[in-house]
Amino acid sequence: MKSHRARGTRDFLPETMHERLAVLESLGRSFRSQGFEPLDTPAFERIETLTGKYGEEGDRLIFKILARGEAGERGECDLALRYDLTVPLARVVAMNPGLRMPFKRYHMGPVWRADRPARGRFREFWQCDGDILGTTSTLAEAECLSLATRALAELGFPQVVMRLNDRRLLAALAAHLGVAERETELLVTIDKLDKIGREGVDKELEGRGLGQVITPLWAVLEGEDDPLERMERILADDPRTRPAVDGLREVIARAVALGCPAEQLVVDPTLARGLDYYTGPIYEGVLPGENMGTICSGGRYDGLIALLGGNDVPAVGISIGLERVLVLREELGLAATDRTSAPILVTIYDSETEPLSIEAARRLREAGLGAELFSDSRKLNKQFKYANARGYAWILTIGTREKEEGTWSIKEMATGEQQALSPEQAIAHLQRRLQG
Amino acid sequence: MKSHRARGTRDFLPETMHERLAVLESLGRSFRSQGFEPLDTPAFERIETLTGKYGEEGDRLIFKILARGEAGERGECDLALRYDLTVPLARVVAMNPGLRMPFKRYHMGPVWRADRPARGRFREFWQCDGDILGTTSTLAEAECLSLATRALAELGFPQVVMRLNDRRLLAALAAHLGVAERETELLVTIDKLDKIGREGVDKELEGRGLGQVITPLWAVLEGEDDPLERMERILADDPRTRPAVDGLREVIARAVALGCPAEQLVVDPTLARGLDYYTGPIYEGVLPGENMGTICSGGRYDGLIALLGGNDVPAVGISIGLERVLVLREELGLAATDRTSAPILVTIYDSETEPLSIEAARRLREAGLGAELFSDSRKLNKQFKYANARGYAWILTIGTREKEEGTWSIKEMATGEQQALSPEQAIAHLQRRLQG
Repeated sequence: MKSHRARGTRDFLPETMHERLAVLESLGRSFRSQGFEPLDTPAFERIETLTGKYGEEGDRLIFKILARGEAGERGECDLALRYDLTVPLARVVAMNPGLRMPFKRYHMGPVWRADRPARGRFREFWQCDGDILGTTSTLAEAECLSLATRALAELGFPQVVMRLNDRRLLAALAAHLGVAERETELLVTIDKLDKIGREGVDKELEGRGLGQVITPLWAVLEGEDDPLERMERILADDPRTRPAVDGLREVIARAVALGCPAEQLVVDPTLARGLDYYTGPIYEGVLPGENMGTICSGGRYDGLIALLGGNDVPAVGISIGLERVLVLREELGLAATDRTSAPILVTIYDSETEPLSIEAARRLREAGLGAELFSDSRKLNKQFKYANARGYAWILTIGTREKEEGTWSIKEMATGEQQALSPEQAIAHLQRRLQG
Repeated sequence: MKSHRARGTRDFLPETMHERLAVLESLGRSFRSQGFEPLDTPAFERIETLTGKYGEEGDRLIFKILARGEAGERGECDLALRYDLTVPLARVVAMNPGLRMPFKRYHMGPVWRADRPARGRFREFWQCDGDILGTTSTLAEAECLSLATRALAELGFPQVVMRLNDRRLLAALAAHLGVAERETELLVTIDKLDKIGREGVDKELEGRGLGQVITPLWAVLEGEDDPLERMERILADDPRTRPAVDGLREVIARAVALGCPAEQLVVDPTLARGLDYYTGPIYEGVLPGENMGTICSGGRYDGLIALLGGNDVPAVGISIGLERVLVLREELGLAATDRTSAPILVTIYDSETEPLSIEAARRLREAGLGAELFSDSRKLNKQFKYANARGYAWILTIGTREKEEGTWSIKEMATGEQQALSPEQAIAHLQRRLQG
């Protein structure tokens, strides 16, 4: 029997895990320092909680779990793996009407989609979400934008540009073009602009029999003037335009006050996020010059919690794409350089000196120093090879001579420098070098 | 529509998450400081990877995922949620023959079992596992025992007693009793001793038609003399006894050298861990005086990786039960007391002073201080009520008078003490008190 991994999934071996953990820790710190509270929910939900929330395509991509017992024998499914972290959050809020509002939570964890696996597309991937529930104030959007800007700056991306739009302006646009009843189709097509270009969009619109909207559409989407003023002017007759435009101005002013650089907040009339449930401002973050697409995104979704049987709780969120952040950090040389959990490898010279090596590992650990003890009998030069290949920063050896002298030999791998010190001196030296 | 959670699962709201995260962080630190490297694997595996590894009962409890496409329409399942973290590890090692040995990894994450939900028994729960692969040295067992002792001491349980036995001694015992072919039955019954007592065990043995073993069995399991010497003596004829007894002595001596208190390492002939795959020393940790059962357990399982199609890689592990640790910490008053992500709540007095409150939140965050900004319009006394209920340590308010004076009012909730300071003074004061 030969073992395989499930299709579209990944194992994270230590060489990638150190960086993953460093990024998750940094993100968690950013969320907490802005007052987002931690929440965790189960990997699976009742199937009816998930279906009908992500559109037809989404329903198709949900992993379904076979019921136990008789129903399962009939092929029935009663549970499903979560598809995102937003619907589980809405379910938690719907089930806990006593939660104190505003409720500001973050959640970092895997989600599952039965998508066709492709380069950079996996069936299990992590989302890192922050959401603010129970307030209609645009301070909530501003806090989400500030969180994303600050968290991504902490990870080495201070230049992230946030594109902004409002779902109500897109609805007003569809009405303005006389295709209100085909809004979804229109948005799906506009959403592809980055991928297929203006010509591609025009072609798709023609193909959908929407050729008549092309000219008036680009008059809204493109121009030399300020895009928010342009939408305000062209869509002025629609009652949704005024609150949306005022709202976006407020979001931007408040985000700037919270520390987002003004030049990195850009209104973009072509931004049309795919998910059904958005109702107000929407946004996504991109890294200028990197052909990576969106690294964070979010918006207001005021109706979702009532849809799940809860009170009518307004909600705003931001989701940071862990996998893309990791790829970018790797490409830009920002990834963490730690290669081992513990910086020191304690070797075992022979069975005579072994008790001294064990004692050394114990004393290093008691002194707060991370120490791996080589736990197999192998020649010392093989242990050094192992240490080199793994990337330990220091090697500690106690051979016959060290035993006689009562010393520990410590070698710094980066410089090759080796010295024999008393245990107390060695510990003090390593503490100085490793704990700064 | 009313929403429900999937049966046997839990949501972790912020008031429990702060403690969960603190414990996970502490465990991760303990694993890393002993050189265990982080690993992560997918939530689901191919169904054939999991089935047949956990006994019949285990197979029944595996959550199965419906295949996509036609096979799914016929009710076929091709994937399953992981049942523990050991089989996925063995699968990773089998798939990566180039991994440098010894390979010492830790993995903390949820596993899923379709067990009947009961008090303290859930369908999703976390395991925190450390394993050492590729060495037959008893240093590996000693490292696992040392890890558990040290990690649990860090979490407030320095008194954990580790019970030890060896699977080979249990096999020799079954042979000695003349029921070698019914070893599993014998062990399953002995394993219940803690729950059903000696009388219960005897009754069950009678029921199984094993009444003849009762007297010779207790002659091995019970006595005033040293249990290891007793087994060594009574089971001396079996070829498995000598290596097992020598091995346990070595494990204990090395664990003591690594810092485990000798009196907390106790050989217990009645210890018979349930899982099929153990082949050598086995152990579990209990807290004396607490009726909680096992809080950590593990042992040597040298055959599992070959069973999954890999090389014949020896392996030893330790698993710490997160959920039990959390219950015990709660009961013993050891749980983390943090109730909010950020210690400071910045209130908003009115629309006039709002920009100053936003600026204060920004300046606190830039100074490295965690600050939540109240993001809804509500009267100040309601914001103070919210702060009290949530448990913020400090409240910062800028009202009309503070605006005129250019000050921030900061209130320490524990003492009720309030003072108006310049922003610079307030930041310095809070840094002193919170980062001290």
